[in-house]
Amino acid sequence: MSVTKRISSISPSLTLAITAKAKAMKAEGKSVIGFGAGEPDFNTPQHIIDAAKAALDAGCTKYTPSSGLPQLRKKIAEKFAAEQGLAYDASQIIVSSGAKHSIFNAMFALIEEGDEVIIPAPYWLTYPELVKVCGGKSVFVEGHKENHFKVDPADIKKAITPKTRMLVFNSPSNPTGAVYTEEEIRAIAKVCEEAGVWVLSDEIYSKLIYDGVKHFSIACASEWMKEHTVIVDGVSKTYAMTGWRIGWLAAPKDVAKAIDSFQSHATSNPASVSQYAALAALEGSEEELVKMRDIFNDRRKFMIERIRRIDGLGCIEPDGAFYIMLVVNKLYGKRYNGRKIGGSMDVADMLLEKGVAVVPGIAFGDDECVRLSYAISKEDIAAGLDRIEEFVKEVF
Amino acid sequence: MSVTKRISSISPSLTLAITAKAKAMKAEGKSVIGFGAGEPDFNTPQHIIDAAKAALDAGCTKYTPSSGLPQLRKKIAEKFAAEQGLAYDASQIIVSSGAKHSIFNAMFALIEEGDEVIIPAPYWLTYPELVKVCGGKSVFVEGHKENHFKVDPADIKKAITPKTRMLVFNSPSNPTGAVYTEEEIRAIAKVCEEAGVWVLSDEIYSKLIYDGVKHFSIACASEWMKEHTVIVDGVSKTYAMTGWRIGWLAAPKDVAKAIDSFQSHATSNPASVSQYAALAALEGSEEELVKMRDIFNDRRKFMIERIRRIDGLGCIEPDGAFYIMLVVNKLYGKRYNGRKIGGSMDVADMLLEKGVAVVPGIAFGDDECVRLSYAISKEDIAAGLDRIEEFVKEVF
Repeated sequence: MSVTKRISSISPSLTLAITAKAKAMKAEGKSVIGFGAGEPDFNTPQHIIDAAKAALDAGCTKYTPSSGLPQLRKKIAEKFAAEQGLAYDASQIIVSSGAKHSIFNAMFALIEEGDEVIIPAPYWLTYPELVKVCGGKSVFVEGHKENHFKVDPADIKKAITPKTRMLVFNSPSNPTGAVYTEEEIRAIAKVCEEAGVWVLSDEIYSKLIYDGVKHFSIACASEWMKEHTVIVDGVSKTYAMTGWRIGWLAAPKDVAKAIDSFQSHATSNPASVSQYAALAALEGSEEELVKMRDIFNDRRKFMIERIRRIDGLGCIEPDGAFYIMLVVNKLYGKRYNGRKIGGSMDVADMLLEKGVAVVPGIAFGDDECVRLSYAISKEDIAAGLDRIEEFVKEVF
Repeated sequence: MSVTKRISSISPSLTLAITAKAKAMKAEGKSVIGFGAGEPDFNTPQHIIDAAKAALDAGCTKYTPSSGLPQLRKKIAEKFAAEQGLAYDASQIIVSSGAKHSIFNAMFALIEEGDEVIIPAPYWLTYPELVKVCGGKSVFVEGHKENHFKVDPADIKKAITPKTRMLVFNSPSNPTGAVYTEEEIRAIAKVCEEAGVWVLSDEIYSKLIYDGVKHFSIACASEWMKEHTVIVDGVSKTYAMTGWRIGWLAAPKDVAKAIDSFQSHATSNPASVSQYAALAALEGSEEELVKMRDIFNDRRKFMIERIRRIDGLGCIEPDGAFYIMLVVNKLYGKRYNGRKIGGSMDVADMLLEKGVAVVPGIAFGDDECVRLSYAISKEDIAAGLDRIEEFVKEVF
């Protein structure tokens, strides 16, 4: 083997075969409705595009400080203060090439060889891969479907050992859309504080929460918790800016300083033009964001209602993000076109034959579900769910 | 300590104090001529800016495949074939957020805990930092000033042990500007092949070579060498595109595949708009590049000639990049304003008082020199060298 253990530890993508098959079907001219999207289907708002173009015209094509433009870091710190009452100095904000990059930086800075990292399941599939890459060991704690897939603080407590370094916390959650209440989060923070466990709080979907449900950052739970939390956020999901690759983290001073040095050598600054675009997004009005959120919410409600009318499927209502976990385990053991349905991979594979692409839940550590995104048009959602209903009827 | 060993191993920047002092002086209204620049002083060519703006107008603001747009990877592979006769499949090209990022990816994929990595000195200061971060140990091999700072293959051979994993090779070199000949490179490749040592070939300055001197990639030395070389390049220096953060690597298939997976989790794709800009740069004419190179060459010649007229300084003629190493060790032991000159940090510090910012050679592992960049205007170069001459006269 030419490559290092840490890098060869990365699992091949479980969904690659399905993605390839969907692509081949489309190439053959077949209709495939893709529920796999992990990015808003809206374009980046025009005023942000315009700001990026103005920056280019002004010659903003050079290096910036490696952890981001001072004015961008300052603006982010101001937003933390204004929106969540979290006081960070601008030096505690590190701007990186996407929230994923911020998560990698945080884990690389905090997870030592052999450390255990608690990850609530279902989880975003990148977490355990990066834990492995950093030499850590993921310890999964199952969420409860009857409580919107949320984990119980007592279960986290049981999973903690002397080796536990970190809890990865993600509210709203990808893939479940679950949003933890302030009370639930305070209870989890208490467990972490008692055991001296750090939290990596991935809040990338914090602006995509529906019907008045409130976001609460675990860093707000206590002074101790704030000093042991790294918050990750970014512009990708909030402002339909996935391709720009701007994320950031807020961390205690020594951690931020170490990541600053590391990033200066490992990648240097995120793209300058993207930073100017992100600044315009944060400085601009939230009108477009509200519009997009309303559309997501409309689709979400439509989808929940439509799924509930399909006998044999379960749907756990998400309060945030733009995903729904469809519970498909009642189909297991039955047959479709003569083939036995054994798990979520089979369901995904068979649905693809019906012209619907979904992500099998096993990719997120939950083999009883498949994940559907509603970052696609309502028409596609309707047509896709018709096909899913047809499939279910054929199975039963 | 909150952070991991690997990340706390990163050395604090040796030049930070000088940079801060220069900034403070400028803020006070003092004139400081900065020879520290690591980026072209030209703006990104207009046709590239225009292509980026067109991409934004076309809605290219979404995720791309994590290792880059297929058409960009294809174009890079075509360039390797056309310009250097190196056959790579597009899947062997991984586009990252800058050449620095590509170097990190390559080291992360190849350097195992305890591996030794040979680095010719003087070296670009990021190499040993990233080797440490990846768990490796840098072994420095001194270049010879009488041969333009270039290392002798016999010295590399002597430095190889059973633990040697990799040679980091950089021609043209930052900080020396040295360009190795094909013959010299073949001799080094032979040593590597005999010992089974990989090469990370940083070719970011390969288009900035002057007066007909030719670039030769070590991957061209033999089939074996190509299968054990990772080439790193990018658009930053060639097209004055530092802020866009687009670099790439070309690697053997299994290494490229592993890095592809790793990057998909650690950062995902480099900024979409930057990728479209890079594609325009590679597809466009090289007219602007030739113009910039001619200007660099004119400054280079002017600078060499001017330095040679300063008694007490040495100058080793660079054939590439945009740096000159000024040999200042004849000043050591003497006094300036009553203070004894002990090394390159002292020289840099004292020159700053004269209104000239340079990088002390000790940052690159050579305490006998300071590095001057000629990515600044000829007027500034002339004025800066006048101040340096004055300083030297005051010392002697």
